[in-house]
Amino acid sequence: MFAQFFENVRQKAPLIHNITNYVTVNDCANMLLACGASPIMADERDDAVEITAICGGLNINIGTLNQRTIPAMFAAGKRANEMGHPVVLDPVGAGASGLRTDTAVQLLEKIKCSAIRGNISEVKTLALGSGTTKGVDADVSDKITEENLDETVNFAKEFARRTEAVVVITGAIDIVADGGRAFCIRNGHPMMSRITGTGCQLSALTAAFVTANPEQPLEAAAAAVCAMGLCGEFAHRRLTELEGNATYRNYIIDAMYRLTPIALKEEAKYEMR
Amino acid sequence: MFAQFFENVRQKAPLIHNITNYVTVNDCANMLLACGASPIMADERDDAVEITAICGGLNINIGTLNQRTIPAMFAAGKRANEMGHPVVLDPVGAGASGLRTDTAVQLLEKIKCSAIRGNISEVKTLALGSGTTKGVDADVSDKITEENLDETVNFAKEFARRTEAVVVITGAIDIVADGGRAFCIRNGHPMMSRITGTGCQLSALTAAFVTANPEQPLEAAAAAVCAMGLCGEFAHRRLTELEGNATYRNYIIDAMYRLTPIALKEEAKYEMR
Amino acid sequence: MFAQFFENVRQKAPLIHNITNYVTVNDCANMLLACGASPIMADERDDAVEITAICGGLNINIGTLNQRTIPAMFAAGKRANEMGHPVVLDPVGAGASGLRTDTAVQLLEKIKCSAIRGNISEVKTLALGSGTTKGVDADVSDKITEENLDETVNFAKEFARRTEAVVVITGAIDIVADGGRAFCIRNGHPMMSRITGTGCQLSALTAAFVTANPEQPLEAAAAAVCAMGLCGEFAHRRLTELEGNATYRNYIIDAMYRLTPIALKEEAKYEMR
Repeated sequence: MFAQFFENVRQKAPLIHNITNYVTVNDCANMLLACGASPIMADERDDAVEITAICGGLNINIGTLNQRTIPAMFAAGKRANEMGHPVVLDPVGAGASGLRTDTAVQLLEKIKCSAIRGNISEVKTLALGSGTTKGVDADVSDKITEENLDETVNFAKEFARRTEAVVVITGAIDIVADGGRAFCIRNGHPMMSRITGTGCQLSALTAAFVTANPEQPLEAAAAAVCAMGLCGEFAHRRLTELEGNATYRNYIIDAMYRLTPIALKEEAKYEMR
Repeated sequence: MFAQFFENVRQKAPLIHNITNYVTVNDCANMLLACGASPIMADERDDAVEITAICGGLNINIGTLNQRTIPAMFAAGKRANEMGHPVVLDPVGAGASGLRTDTAVQLLEKIKCSAIRGNISEVKTLALGSGTTKGVDADVSDKITEENLDETVNFAKEFARRTEAVVVITGAIDIVADGGRAFCIRNGHPMMSRITGTGCQLSALTAAFVTANPEQPLEAAAAAVCAMGLCGEFAHRRLTELEGNATYRNYIIDAMYRLTPIALKEEAKYEMR
Repeated sequence: MFAQFFENVRQKAPLIHNITNYVTVNDCANMLLACGASPIMADERDDAVEITAICGGLNINIGTLNQRTIPAMFAAGKRANEMGHPVVLDPVGAGASGLRTDTAVQLLEKIKCSAIRGNISEVKTLALGSGTTKGVDADVSDKITEENLDETVNFAKEFARRTEAVVVITGAIDIVADGGRAFCIRNGHPMMSRITGTGCQLSALTAAFVTANPEQPLEAAAAAVCAMGLCGEFAHRRLTELEGNATYRNYIIDAMYRLTPIALKEEAKYEMR
């Protein structure tokens, strides 16, 4: 299943519009190219709406949002909805400031999202409408563990039911849930958190997978999460003792460029809950 | 000839002002440093005008244009014209949205450009004043092939005559034309299209080469295109089986850092039409 | 001493808010992660103020300043001052345009900075309230040499007394001074100037070191400068003959990721003046 989803990305080469932060935007673009999709970025309202119209999917990331780009997010999201294009929302830093929390909450109210991807603190903030986040990382108190996994899965399913979106919560264990089922994914490597933007890249990747597989957004998002995690694993194996997070960043994108559908199918580690 | 042009870049170390998109800006800066030039970026109108004045050349790239930066492009372009500095225009995504098409067309009307660099779809859009572009990549229907090469060369020369700019159309075969002559260049590697920003980098590089060789913009632009293509070839030879587009991106910039004028002269593959 | 300062960065993992340019922002984020700190970026005024409040330190870099982000710099700086958080100012291009010079001078007047980091031309501009800078690089006429080192140290101390900030002037020899003492640091490699953003990365790093060692900002800033220089040296030793500035950029960040407090202590090359 995952193999076919990945094949579809490579064959359809979906064009993904990203309204995203300027910190990790280059890595998001190269990750989309690595997986077989094509990136385009626009954040001026009218431009963003037109660009959305020629794309297959939209990835909204609020990482360095501002008063000029926020209206572009809403307008592009609305247009994507009108055209039936998948929309992925990455609520970067929701809970860390009022502007981020409010924008993410309102985006979710006004825009039908196919998938929401964040860390547990960000997603809890979205679900509650308020929250506390340590910057762009999850609070330690929120960490997903074997002990609280079932509870977190239930939270994700409930939030997915309410939003009618696939909910992707990434952490030591990743959860990808719709209202009824959840993938608990154990791919990835802890060092991925020592690179800026692996979460942003995954959101872009999720948009590509869901756009190429619109009928099965849950499985498509899970495939994207497994693919990203696997690339983190493969890239880590290549690291030599002098190499650190900058090289690791490149190796992860390289790994996506070289990843085969077969490897994704065989190495994906998940269970359903 | 190309060897001397490249020597001039390294010896004069021209300072190039880039008003460019935030997706590929870091790579443009490192590519300029790699070739021996120096980059500076400013996009607030008054700042951009002053920075233009202390630079040798200006590179305008509309990749993530917005209502704040568009006036900076016009004002900086005007100032560069007043000072007799070369201006390169990269109409990223012209044809993909009204704002991009209109901005590019108006920049070309108001600003005297030394060179215009884009893919065939973008350049056709500029020439016609309207067009359709698949995002930031050329339409398949527009692809430059051996069959339509003469026709495309004639189009490029005609557009160059009209704009009095060197017209650089990049694709499987690159065309660099003024009103009378055209270089058809066969350096490069298809994998360059799997990295974000190789076109943006080439536009920055073209600005550096034309600024260091202002008397011969056609040949200088052709040298830049050959140099970029060669770096794509050299970098590709270094790639091992685990390496992908992220490493390739680095290798291309590395190759420019290491490229010698002699190698450029000897390995440049072009014919005149 | 330096070993302990570095340990403190790794153990406290300070969250650093960066209002910075879009050219080198990704490298700043990865450098902060490499040293053990965490980055966050916000540049919309209200957002920037709130994000400042949840961080430990603030790094203001005026590299691609604009009318929207300048108020964010002032408001965030004020908030950081109210909370007693260290603020680092990087006056990129001060002297190259009126907007840059004026903004940097006014930031210094309105915001209490713990440290100011720039090249000699930028810092002289700040000290005089006006100046000439060749883009983002120091003027040749300003270059720090053995001959003018004592004079430059005296200038740095005097400026430090006046601003009550640690003054960090980077060049062939780096100077880190407060009103009474100065570190003259001879780590680093000339090739670091062939990468965009090593100065920006050092400013971010300085913010991390000063935030983790708030009682000794002079020594903490000197430790950051030595650490950056050492990484430039270690990274250069890894370079093979085909590798250039793109790979060097990655190796420097990698070197910070792998740098040990012991190596910093043992390899730091400085004298007090």
